[in-house]
Amino acid sequence: MKVGIDVGGTTVKIGYVEADVIKYDYEIKTKKETLFDDIFKNVLDFTQKKNIKIDFIGIGVPGNVKNNIINRLPNVGIYDFDIIKCARKYFKDVEIKSSNDANVAALGEAVYSKVSESCFMVTLGTGVGGGFVDNYKIVEGAHCNIGEIGHLFIDNIHNYKCNCGLCGCLETVSSATGIKRLAYEYKKDFEKTKIDFNNLSAKEVCDKAKLNDPLAVKVLDEVSLNLGKALATISLCTDPSVFFIGGGVAACGEYLFELIRKYYKKYALYSVKDTPILPAKLGNKAGIFGASYLGGLK
Amino acid sequence: MKVGIDVGGTTVKIGYVEADVIKYDYEIKTKKETLFDDIFKNVLDFTQKKNIKIDFIGIGVPGNVKNNIINRLPNVGIYDFDIIKCARKYFKDVEIKSSNDANVAALGEAVYSKVSESCFMVTLGTGVGGGFVDNYKIVEGAHCNIGEIGHLFIDNIHNYKCNCGLCGCLETVSSATGIKRLAYEYKKDFEKTKIDFNNLSAKEVCDKAKLNDPLAVKVLDEVSLNLGKALATISLCTDPSVFFIGGGVAACGEYLFELIRKYYKKYALYSVKDTPILPAKLGNKAGIFGASYLGGLK
Repeated sequence: MKVGIDVGGTTVKIGYVEADVIKYDYEIKTKKETLFDDIFKNVLDFTQKKNIKIDFIGIGVPGNVKNNIINRLPNVGIYDFDIIKCARKYFKDVEIKSSNDANVAALGEAVYSKVSESCFMVTLGTGVGGGFVDNYKIVEGAHCNIGEIGHLFIDNIHNYKCNCGLCGCLETVSSATGIKRLAYEYKKDFEKTKIDFNNLSAKEVCDKAKLNDPLAVKVLDEVSLNLGKALATISLCTDPSVFFIGGGVAACGEYLFELIRKYYKKYALYSVKDTPILPAKLGNKAGIFGASYLGGLK
Repeated sequence: MKVGIDVGGTTVKIGYVEADVIKYDYEIKTKKETLFDDIFKNVLDFTQKKNIKIDFIGIGVPGNVKNNIINRLPNVGIYDFDIIKCARKYFKDVEIKSSNDANVAALGEAVYSKVSESCFMVTLGTGVGGGFVDNYKIVEGAHCNIGEIGHLFIDNIHNYKCNCGLCGCLETVSSATGIKRLAYEYKKDFEKTKIDFNNLSAKEVCDKAKLNDPLAVKVLDEVSLNLGKALATISLCTDPSVFFIGGGVAACGEYLFELIRKYYKKYALYSVKDTPILPAKLGNKAGIFGASYLGGLK
């Protein structure tokens, strides 16, 4: 059996996968000081208790990792950490691989959807991230930087300053944060809006757009224009068989997807205009599935 | 020995490569009607005459090919052609692989420069193309569309219409054609320019820029800004170890490269700001080298 581990900022999801099915799964708290010891100790205990034979442990982490050496997990507070050195205290010879969580989710979606050629997955949350999978293998890039698509230069209307130091980045105008920012930006032009600014969230804007609130409609139109342009750009560099979009903002559903598809078709090169743009299907199981496949499909 | 073949619009370059050295090479004319029969017949004759043992034939073609089936070579006029079916008339069991010429050139540069991780090669000629190589393997994309970077949306100043139907594409403002277009665009603002508009070429503009002609300087500055922005975009999607730039316009040399590097650093995400941007080294031998490596490095 394979173990797939999805490290998040507050919890770690651990799953045991066999024949494309999660047989067992549970969560532990993310504690910065003892994170990987906690993980491997828990897996060892559970494995022994259930008398499971495991032959692979895959780990998705929210940050930059290469060759099982973590460079930085900013949201967890771990830097320069050797995963294998820690793992070998608990598992002498089980194969272990790790990758960035957005890549791992993309791999999970690719395998689950049986997209053999390639897929590009976009995660729309507080920020915007991505992962690229080709022939069921993650393409990480020389600096593990593939998927930093939140920093594509897309917006030349507002040119908001991004956390990264650049201006006009995709995530300044298309993440959950970006949706709220644009709602505030255009608020003065739409006095009669029904958007509840006391409880402003991306979901609030999406819900009101579906009810035809003019401000919400304008915001989601601009968000989708930016995303459509970004996918058109990505398609020239990675040319996936399919785009998957996941994350909290994707929960807006077909209303958002139809708009993104419209603008993608407008800006994509003729040869890739028909690349499907689909909702990610695995939700919060993508990390466990994807991590379990880091060592290969068998 | 491996055979590397570089199919161009007017000639086909054929080379025999062993231990990273081109042992023999020659050219034949590109004749649309009999192109691949001409190629394989010539290779068979030469191989027999010289009593060479060949174990691989790699072919780079100027267009779209997948699994050795040509979709379209617009500049040659060949569509829907099965390379293997033709090859088997001459070679019963030699392994044969093919790919787009920009990809093949990128592979040649990656192997020659021993860039194991990944490289992205940009070809600046009449148009702008590219190729992406990861771990000495070409990443082609689902529609063999990787490298169509000439159609990245980059320019929102002039928004010229591109041949592809879109507006603001990189190649409208950064190819050899784009350089000439921009020279005409700004001509009226620089009456004292020394650019010879009767013999206008990208080289003429580059030469005059090096002599500090204000119009030429302005044009190359804008061309480099566009290219720097485009490389910054590409680095977020493919994150190569190194960028190579080749093609006729790259012959402008360090003057152009320094400007491109300046703007790349300005627009690239902090994590990839130091990715080197280097002139391609193989010149017109990149096609032969790259094609010979299509089957692997050994």
